[in-house]
Amino acid sequence: MKLRIKKISFNTGGPFVVVLNENDAKRLDVRALDRVNIKNVEAIVDISKGNHGVSVKEGEIGVLIEAFENLRLKTNELIEISPARKPESLIYIRKKLDDKKLNEKEINAIIKDVVNNRLSETELTYFVSGCYDNGLEMEEVVNLTKAIVEHGGRLKLGKKIILDKHCVGGLAGNRTSMVIVPIIAAAGYTIPKTSSRAISSASGTADTVETLCPVSLSVKDVTRVVKKTNGCLVWGGAMGMASADDRLIKIEKLLSLDPRGLLLASIMAKKMSVGATHVLVDIPCGKEAKIKNMKEALKLKRQFIELSKRLGIKIRVIITDGSQPIGNGIGPVLEARDVINVLKGDGPNDLREKSIHMSGIMLEMIGEKNGLRIAKEMLDSGLAYKKMKEIIKIQGGNLKSSIVNRLGRYKKEFYSNKSGIVKRIDNNKANSIGRVAGAPEDKFAGVLLNVKRNSKVTKNELIFTIYSSNKDRLKYASSNVKGFIEVN
Amino acid sequence: MKLRIKKISFNTGGPFVVVLNENDAKRLDVRALDRVNIKNVEAIVDISKGNHGVSVKEGEIGVLIEAFENLRLKTNELIEISPARKPESLIYIRKKLDDKKLNEKEINAIIKDVVNNRLSETELTYFVSGCYDNGLEMEEVVNLTKAIVEHGGRLKLGKKIILDKHCVGGLAGNRTSMVIVPIIAAAGYTIPKTSSRAISSASGTADTVETLCPVSLSVKDVTRVVKKTNGCLVWGGAMGMASADDRLIKIEKLLSLDPRGLLLASIMAKKMSVGATHVLVDIPCGKEAKIKNMKEALKLKRQFIELSKRLGIKIRVIITDGSQPIGNGIGPVLEARDVINVLKGDGPNDLREKSIHMSGIMLEMIGEKNGLRIAKEMLDSGLAYKKMKEIIKIQGGNLKSSIVNRLGRYKKEFYSNKSGIVKRIDNNKANSIGRVAGAPEDKFAGVLLNVKRNSKVTKNELIFTIYSSNKDRLKYASSNVKGFIEVN
Repeated sequence: MKLRIKKISFNTGGPFVVVLNENDAKRLDVRALDRVNIKNVEAIVDISKGNHGVSVKEGEIGVLIEAFENLRLKTNELIEISPARKPESLIYIRKKLDDKKLNEKEINAIIKDVVNNRLSETELTYFVSGCYDNGLEMEEVVNLTKAIVEHGGRLKLGKKIILDKHCVGGLAGNRTSMVIVPIIAAAGYTIPKTSSRAISSASGTADTVETLCPVSLSVKDVTRVVKKTNGCLVWGGAMGMASADDRLIKIEKLLSLDPRGLLLASIMAKKMSVGATHVLVDIPCGKEAKIKNMKEALKLKRQFIELSKRLGIKIRVIITDGSQPIGNGIGPVLEARDVINVLKGDGPNDLREKSIHMSGIMLEMIGEKNGLRIAKEMLDSGLAYKKMKEIIKIQGGNLKSSIVNRLGRYKKEFYSNKSGIVKRIDNNKANSIGRVAGAPEDKFAGVLLNVKRNSKVTKNELIFTIYSSNKDRLKYASSNVKGFIEVN
Repeated sequence: MKLRIKKISFNTGGPFVVVLNENDAKRLDVRALDRVNIKNVEAIVDISKGNHGVSVKEGEIGVLIEAFENLRLKTNELIEISPARKPESLIYIRKKLDDKKLNEKEINAIIKDVVNNRLSETELTYFVSGCYDNGLEMEEVVNLTKAIVEHGGRLKLGKKIILDKHCVGGLAGNRTSMVIVPIIAAAGYTIPKTSSRAISSASGTADTVETLCPVSLSVKDVTRVVKKTNGCLVWGGAMGMASADDRLIKIEKLLSLDPRGLLLASIMAKKMSVGATHVLVDIPCGKEAKIKNMKEALKLKRQFIELSKRLGIKIRVIITDGSQPIGNGIGPVLEARDVINVLKGDGPNDLREKSIHMSGIMLEMIGEKNGLRIAKEMLDSGLAYKKMKEIIKIQGGNLKSSIVNRLGRYKKEFYSNKSGIVKRIDNNKANSIGRVAGAPEDKFAGVLLNVKRNSKVTKNELIFTIYSSNKDRLKYASSNVKGFIEVN
């Protein structure tokens, strides 16, 4: 059936969408959410009914902007439209909903269609629900990991040993990667670190690194950086790694679901994509961290170990204190200042100690006898700091002229209203204050802590400061601090 | 935050949608699929990124046509936008996904939001998945049924006894309602029958009745019809009954899911909405019917009985032969001709016998001693036929001038290529041929059978005819008959 193109200035971020008039849809025997072929490409059908809405008339086909531009269509052009089959992957999604195990081919078909944007949000939701409700067996997680790697960007460094680390997020200020990468790289080992941006926290590692240098590097540029310096600190998103993830995460966020199998596959796929042979996983455990209690942490640890074994990756998993933020700063610039200070031999002790500890384990994983000592040496000798400056430079930054040398334009200081001991620093609140102040988009926005849990404070002592580039945002964030720090 | 209105000529059929520029979204601290308030009404947020797509600029808010018209907005108008909370029902949907039982209040909140179009397709999909994967306990189904009734249109006839029937679909040509309603109404009892249109079959009861008279009557008009004639044959959709259903069904269709709890609630809600006191449920059981085997049929029967008991509705459930189409015609006009012929004392015997049998049971349910005899009398005396003409007339039709007196403009006859016994008539194929020929939109399109299962046929005997108003469609349908009727 030939239909006349009508451009619709809307995009969905999902698969291509076309709008048919009710009567043409009946003639084609397609219903809403069915597929049609247009210029040898598949599009999902929406139906225009009655006079309401876009009112695509009989003989017309409304084409949403993504398809319109991508297929180089012209308004009023006559184009042949025919019904198309639904993707086979829908059969497998249904199978998972029916609590049946998926094999390698089936999982691969689903991930391929996710990456190629062939599935609608509703269809993806069914997949996420199936994985959430029925779980995935370890073999399915293995196949899922491999499928995500196969259908995403990959780094090929040709090294025998490649180190990597991962933190099961949620802890404000936890920027160990930015200390560990220069330590490991300075010690002569390869560590191509890719990180994510913040989803619900005040800053992700990629957001914080970005205050020092660009992080959106192509696979080719990352390869060059790592070959030259042994390490890198980049945003995985720009490299198209594990790209199947992004669409699934959007769906999961909606109900704050975190289907365990998808989480494991997503993390390990990113490690496999950079060719990691040795991985250290940090699971912060605490009431306000992602992992709430030791039982949950131990279960996740076992799953990481089992999965890595099957993927042929050496792993160590540590469970760490997740009860309060790490470092003093929360927000991109404030966190980067902590990192630079630690690399200079100063800075917050918790960030320094945790980074040394983790670097030590990683070095011992690959056969170094005294990893902890080497890690400390790299830091104290200034070699790690030198390495960091090297990485920043080759990624296109310049530490001297970087924005980390400045602070937010506006600030408000908060003082303790009594003397006592700091009993609790609310991690969620820290992220929330930071976000309201403007982080991570406003690089200067955030919270600077003067105390940690168990600190002694006297009445009217400065306990924290909120920074922002925007007066109104500072005001709004300042009105929202109740319960953040508890002194008793 | 004040933003400038920009109209976007697209509708989604779902909740109101607005598009924010990426940077404004960050300022409001909302993400895609979050909600904002606009003119005291809630809308779901979509984000416009980069230059692609609608390119809603900073300071603008794109408003999709449903919201634009409904809120009487003007292009370039400045409107205050603020973040809104997500509906509480999302918490309950998550709860169901977590396999927890929902209470009355929680189910009511979900259905209320479904009816008021507050939930996105993704959110509805999570609900359907949760119900499908974790099932619903009988108490949840009871509450779901009541919630659907509460948030939909209701018929209030003020009668002590109100009869109704339902068939758990899937069988081509199964138009017993159109014979039963006039029989019961002629016998002096009230039977306000609402029916649905075809979703995947060649015709639904509402589609077939529509060849005789209008079926889209308001609650007020239906009340008038029933008060005058004791019965009606109308489309439930026009009365806004069980309207929560429509959106859920769209989602279920996508993966051909049929979560049992939702099915039961949906059916019984429609019965409750018309005030039914006595209900007969017909479960056709057969390989190509919705219910495939006796075990499944018996389970469903028990569930119907249990649910009705809790709802205070008297019920009888019969399991019938679902192995082949009922009657000779498949498609709106062809089925209506069968019905009229049966009412005239002629017509296909299977349709006649099944209708008498069911009418008899219904009459005995309400205390008639010899229901079967009464049903037969109503039919044979012509009283049921007279009643049918009365109903057709008061619903706005006219049997004499109706289109059932004509046949499709084009036809193609099919002959047996050997002598033998008819072993099988494929029910799915019957529906599919009918649809390809143009049914149910083309009222004349469909299949007319000359044989039933176990009929003896000789070589070159006419076994069926395909009708259509469209030559091309007839051709296409005719090329698609392989395996429809098996002679051996």
